Amino acid sequence: MTTPPRWSLMIHGGAGQLARDVIDDAYDAAARAALSRALDAGTAILAAGGAALDAVAAAVEVLEDDPSFNAGRGAVFTYDAAIELDAAIMDGRDRRAGAVAAVSATRHPVALARAVMEHSPHVFLAGRGADIFSAEQGLEQADADWFATPERRAQLDAMKARASGAGWFDVDMKYGTVGAVACDAQGHVAAATSTGGVTGKRWGRIGDSPVIGAGTYADDRSCAVSATGSGEFFIRESVGHEIGARIRLLGEAAGQATATVLAGVRDLGGTGGVIVATPDGQTLWHFNTSGMFRGRADSSGARQVAIYGDEA
Amino acid sequence: MTTPPRWSLMIHGGAGQLARDVIDDAYDAAARAALSRALDAGTAILAAGGAALDAVAAAVEVLEDDPSFNAGRGAVFTYDAAIELDAAIMDGRDRRAGAVAAVSATRHPVALARAVMEHSPHVFLAGRGADIFSAEQGLEQADADWFATPERRAQLDAMKARASGAGWFDVDMKYGTVGAVACDAQGHVAAATSTGGVTGKRWGRIGDSPVIGAGTYADDRSCAVSATGSGEFFIRESVGHEIGARIRLLGEAAGQATATVLAGVRDLGGTGGVIVATPDGQTLWHFNTSGMFRGRADSSGARQVAIYGDEA
Repeated sequence: MTTPPRWSLMIHGGAGQLARDVIDDAYDAAARAALSRALDAGTAILAAGGAALDAVAAAVEVLEDDPSFNAGRGAVFTYDAAIELDAAIMDGRDRRAGAVAAVSATRHPVALARAVMEHSPHVFLAGRGADIFSAEQGLEQADADWFATPERRAQLDAMKARASGAGWFDVDMKYGTVGAVACDAQGHVAAATSTGGVTGKRWGRIGDSPVIGAGTYADDRSCAVSATGSGEFFIRESVGHEIGARIRLLGEAAGQATATVLAGVRDLGGTGGVIVATPDGQTLWHFNTSGMFRGRADSSGARQVAIYGDEA
Repeated sequence: MTTPPRWSLMIHGGAGQLARDVIDDAYDAAARAALSRALDAGTAILAAGGAALDAVAAAVEVLEDDPSFNAGRGAVFTYDAAIELDAAIMDGRDRRAGAVAAVSATRHPVALARAVMEHSPHVFLAGRGADIFSAEQGLEQADADWFATPERRAQLDAMKARASGAGWFDVDMKYGTVGAVACDAQGHVAAATSTGGVTGKRWGRIGDSPVIGAGTYADDRSCAVSATGSGEFFIRESVGHEIGARIRLLGEAAGQATATVLAGVRDLGGTGGVIVATPDGQTLWHFNTSGMFRGRADSSGARQVAIYGDEA
């Protein structure tokens, strides 16, 4: 038996049809650099004895600012060419949680989710009301120009050009959602997730990221989970809570629980991935797509950034 | 052993501080009459061999139309004196689900949740986008005057008059959420929930009702659940999915699983209740408040409507 690490951090920048022939060198390099900066931000906190909650928030904020990923700056466009951001954060110590959906005015949606958790009597806020709460809380505001990138606009236009019938939705299965899970030196876990959703989403669609128990979950009795993928299936499978429940109720190993639950998602028709951190410092990723933007670091000095499925 | 009923239906109209000295005779009679009509609507479908999904939708629509309950007509007001309705429905056969949050234009929000499930690629829609989807789907529209009642407006004004500091929120713990769970003659379960949320909710607050796995859940492998209570705690506890997980993973009896999960909610600081239906035709309610508007009926001829905790 090896000694588990004293603290650990794992991050993702989305799972999907990520292969070397579709990711050009510049995108590959930019994404790896951003993942590395996100690891730096989180590990600085954990190495100093800080809380998992602070580490996941810091890591996600770095990814939200980077246009390589579908969260914050660089988020995908809705069908109506708007930006509607979802995010959530959960603290495994006491299962406090905060989530926001369809927000459009906060530079770091994960910070808004945290403000909901810490400074409102609610867990889940949406839309313009959540934007108003953000301003009242004094969070850093950003306008539509901050979030919008020409690449995402081009993706929307391409999607609409291809769209026909039921196939219009989410045709590329490129999920750029970002997330982080961590275990701190005190043995507490936390999770955070942030996303622009799917290109061309309509009618105020909310995905799994801000649904506590689906795309984001943390519980010191089991694990922390952040998911990315075809959110509708992750909601129906309650992915985060189900992974935790299998560990907590059955005593399953985290890897076994995660593989079982992702197989359940696939049985429903969904694809994607998750990252998981347990209170004893284990981390793991699992995805049933060709790749997942991802990274990990822990107190033993281990550190890795990867994109494609064949990177060990 | 008694033979389980061939089909069963259970409904609720909210849990809270419901005692004979706060519910006057007229309100008591109106609520019981509405619960009875909702049972009639659902049992007519189940007795004819219809689907649990259809039965829970029909029962909830009756309760949405009745101003005795906080859903549809008679919903509570937000802090800004608006009506923002949440609803969800889930089919235990395949765990398909639909949910809406902060909608304001559909007479029967549960019907809109069902349309999301059946006629969109999404599971969860919110706000104005969901209202637009509703109109596109041809659902019956209703304006603010349909939903608003003088009693709810007076409750908002009274709440604001009393409000101070953190205590402004949800001071009465009167949760009028409505819901239904059923098992049909084919052994399939379904759940539906609809609510106006809590009086004085702010910033686009979403409660547990439309959060699949929290206030609404259905899975033929375990049970169907509809919850009512202090939704923030029900989200953090993933109440619906956790009850199902305990039955499915541990083999717990539904009553034991439900009692355990509601105790967990109370440990977090929450109160409320749930109704549960299992695929073998059992139904049960459980609440840790002084009362819950509730009713049940099954193929054996059993039928009951109750409000206070001491009604067997």
